[in-house]
Amino acid sequence: MSTATPHDIPTYMAALGAQARAAATVMARASTRAKNAALLALARRLREAGEPLQAANAKDIAAAELAGLAAPMVDRLRLTLKVVATVAEGCEQLAAMPDPIGEITGVKRRPTGISVGQMRVPLGVFGMIYESRPNVTIEAASLAIKSGNACILRGGSEAIHSNLALWQLVQAALVEAGLPAEAVQLVETTDRAAVGRLIAMPEYVDVIIPRGGKGLIERISAEARVPVIKHLDGNCHTYIDAEVDIEQALIVTDNAKTQKYSPCNATESLLVHARSAAAFLPKIGAIFAAKGVEMRCCPAAKSMLSDVPGAQLADATESDWFEEYLAPIISVKVVSGLDEAIAHINRYGSHHTDAILTTNHPNAMRFLREVDSSSVMVNASTRFADGFEYGLGAEIGISTDKFHARGPVGLEGLTSMKWVVLGQGEVRS
Amino acid sequence: MSTATPHDIPTYMAALGAQARAAATVMARASTRAKNAALLALARRLREAGEPLQAANAKDIAAAELAGLAAPMVDRLRLTLKVVATVAEGCEQLAAMPDPIGEITGVKRRPTGISVGQMRVPLGVFGMIYESRPNVTIEAASLAIKSGNACILRGGSEAIHSNLALWQLVQAALVEAGLPAEAVQLVETTDRAAVGRLIAMPEYVDVIIPRGGKGLIERISAEARVPVIKHLDGNCHTYIDAEVDIEQALIVTDNAKTQKYSPCNATESLLVHARSAAAFLPKIGAIFAAKGVEMRCCPAAKSMLSDVPGAQLADATESDWFEEYLAPIISVKVVSGLDEAIAHINRYGSHHTDAILTTNHPNAMRFLREVDSSSVMVNASTRFADGFEYGLGAEIGISTDKFHARGPVGLEGLTSMKWVVLGQGEVRS
Repeated sequence: MSTATPHDIPTYMAALGAQARAAATVMARASTRAKNAALLALARRLREAGEPLQAANAKDIAAAELAGLAAPMVDRLRLTLKVVATVAEGCEQLAAMPDPIGEITGVKRRPTGISVGQMRVPLGVFGMIYESRPNVTIEAASLAIKSGNACILRGGSEAIHSNLALWQLVQAALVEAGLPAEAVQLVETTDRAAVGRLIAMPEYVDVIIPRGGKGLIERISAEARVPVIKHLDGNCHTYIDAEVDIEQALIVTDNAKTQKYSPCNATESLLVHARSAAAFLPKIGAIFAAKGVEMRCCPAAKSMLSDVPGAQLADATESDWFEEYLAPIISVKVVSGLDEAIAHINRYGSHHTDAILTTNHPNAMRFLREVDSSSVMVNASTRFADGFEYGLGAEIGISTDKFHARGPVGLEGLTSMKWVVLGQGEVRS
Repeated sequence: MSTATPHDIPTYMAALGAQARAAATVMARASTRAKNAALLALARRLREAGEPLQAANAKDIAAAELAGLAAPMVDRLRLTLKVVATVAEGCEQLAAMPDPIGEITGVKRRPTGISVGQMRVPLGVFGMIYESRPNVTIEAASLAIKSGNACILRGGSEAIHSNLALWQLVQAALVEAGLPAEAVQLVETTDRAAVGRLIAMPEYVDVIIPRGGKGLIERISAEARVPVIKHLDGNCHTYIDAEVDIEQALIVTDNAKTQKYSPCNATESLLVHARSAAAFLPKIGAIFAAKGVEMRCCPAAKSMLSDVPGAQLADATESDWFEEYLAPIISVKVVSGLDEAIAHINRYGSHHTDAILTTNHPNAMRFLREVDSSSVMVNASTRFADGFEYGLGAEIGISTDKFHARGPVGLEGLTSMKWVVLGQGEVRS
């Protein structure tokens, strides 16, 4: 099933690359039926995996505990029955989705007589580099299968036994459906040099998708010789306009900040129009105070919040406006109007997700158009910026770039459009 | 109007970059009316330019002749009244096209109540690096204006006086329409270090579009620190299937090869199914022989062509199958069937444009799906692979990559899609 454990990293990675490229050709022309059969077989094998999978996972858990990893890190490694059931269900959901590949759209007849349109095709081979959670192995494999791509997976060393066990299930499911086992390959060495090779083989790998900390992603982006679908930070804003439903704004702002503190789409900065500040700030301040959310304020905001019982207030510094806290902290600024709000977001934000809460239609439209972020929202919580919430069915990652894919990336981000010309013997004059 | 001639290249380029970034913000929210007014003003100013433009162009021509440039190279520099009229017309055609910016598509209501769609927005700032022909200055500037981007142009040193004169017209047209002059900037130095900076300022430039020889483009791609929309070689194939209208195939193949020899979409390699070879090869061979097209053949093709009077035949070597001749030379191979044809094209081709000539529908569909090229065609000349022929209205370049844009790239290649969420106070649970 798997290649021999590698000694010579460049040779080993080139072999993985060549096998992936060959498998990609087969996957690109695979039938929807075969791809869905592989996904359903994978779901079944995951549910039936039982003891061998649990034993492999236990090895990683034991090693992590021995190494003294923090409890939350150890928990992220756990392939509980619930986690396994969830990823199996994800495979079934993908099988139920329409096949994006082969669809021809936008066909137009040209004056010359030819018809010109575009066909959606796989990108080819993607490399995925991720940390800790072994369920990403199944998410990436299933997305590769459905999108007709091949992939090379490089998981974290702390999950290597779990990843190897999951990969065996993936390859068995591929073979069961008559598809090449090499469509999904796992890098079997934890040698870091393998990552260096994976991101520098344009002849074998078309795109790299890293998932992990900002440091990892910045390093990969700087060194990669192929395109990277990357997600850096999410310094998201919620802006309260002059004309606004205050009660609704309180509910949405509270959700955007406090529903969860760690996701990249949580609001980190609150901007409030001067005309709404007196009505809105003390009320949201009381909600934040009750939940222990520290507020780092501009002078105007601080003075309006000073009477809120139990409020943890601090003076915002310049660096606070750039900060992604991922914690119960929020920066708060009173602004003179929409222009200042938009300029502030475009200057200090990370172009991830920003929302305006307003009842003024022209302001809503200006905000949508002029805020240069991958998701722009009107009267909704920034927490909605997510592939599943957007109906993409599955999310391979989130892009903070503008090139190729932007924001939550689903199956389509793993495809490209080629031109199709249908003629009846036309020639160019 | 223009910045002082630069001495310190990094400082100068950073200043251009910062000005472009600021102008891009204004261009992104510019009205369709203002952008079209700038395009129409530019067309008018081009037509009225008269003597000063001709004098600037004459300087370049004189310098080129003095330097002993070959006559075709000197001709490409010439801003004849016809060339000027053509680029002016191009500006008017762009003004008449729909504005791609701001369009919201694919809006769907989600179970949570939010509506999710995508809005087309400009990429921001593009850098264009090109050689000799000064009309590219106007093409790039007009595409930047219509797509709401800013651009930094770096033309060839041999066209510097013409480019400076054209750029003055562009900036005057922008100002006349109330748009920032810095939306289009020209690098005023011919120092090569300026190119090195232009391609390595991700903070100011979002994408680089080179136009020129393969050497230039490979160098830029290797060194760029931002995405490059690049066009490398075009080794295009025409494949004659077993079931085919021979008369039509002769007309299309002749056009694909001989209508012009130098374009990237000219056919360079002819593949013929063994069952069609006897009927087709001697006839196309006679056409090629009459036009002086040398045929580099596999043994089977050579023997079938050996009786054609005046045919220039040679044995194809392995390197011939990879070759982009851009000349009256074609490689010819007899293949055993569609599988061999597809495998040959995917192995030796450059993934640019390939055509099947066939009356068999399943074969046509397999060719479209399985040939991994930016344009795939049925019963049409490969020479149709072109932004204007495809109805894009304008062509900023051709991409031989799969990422972002593939094949002929029009205005849409200079845009990206951001997510738009319209809510009524929804929160995430």
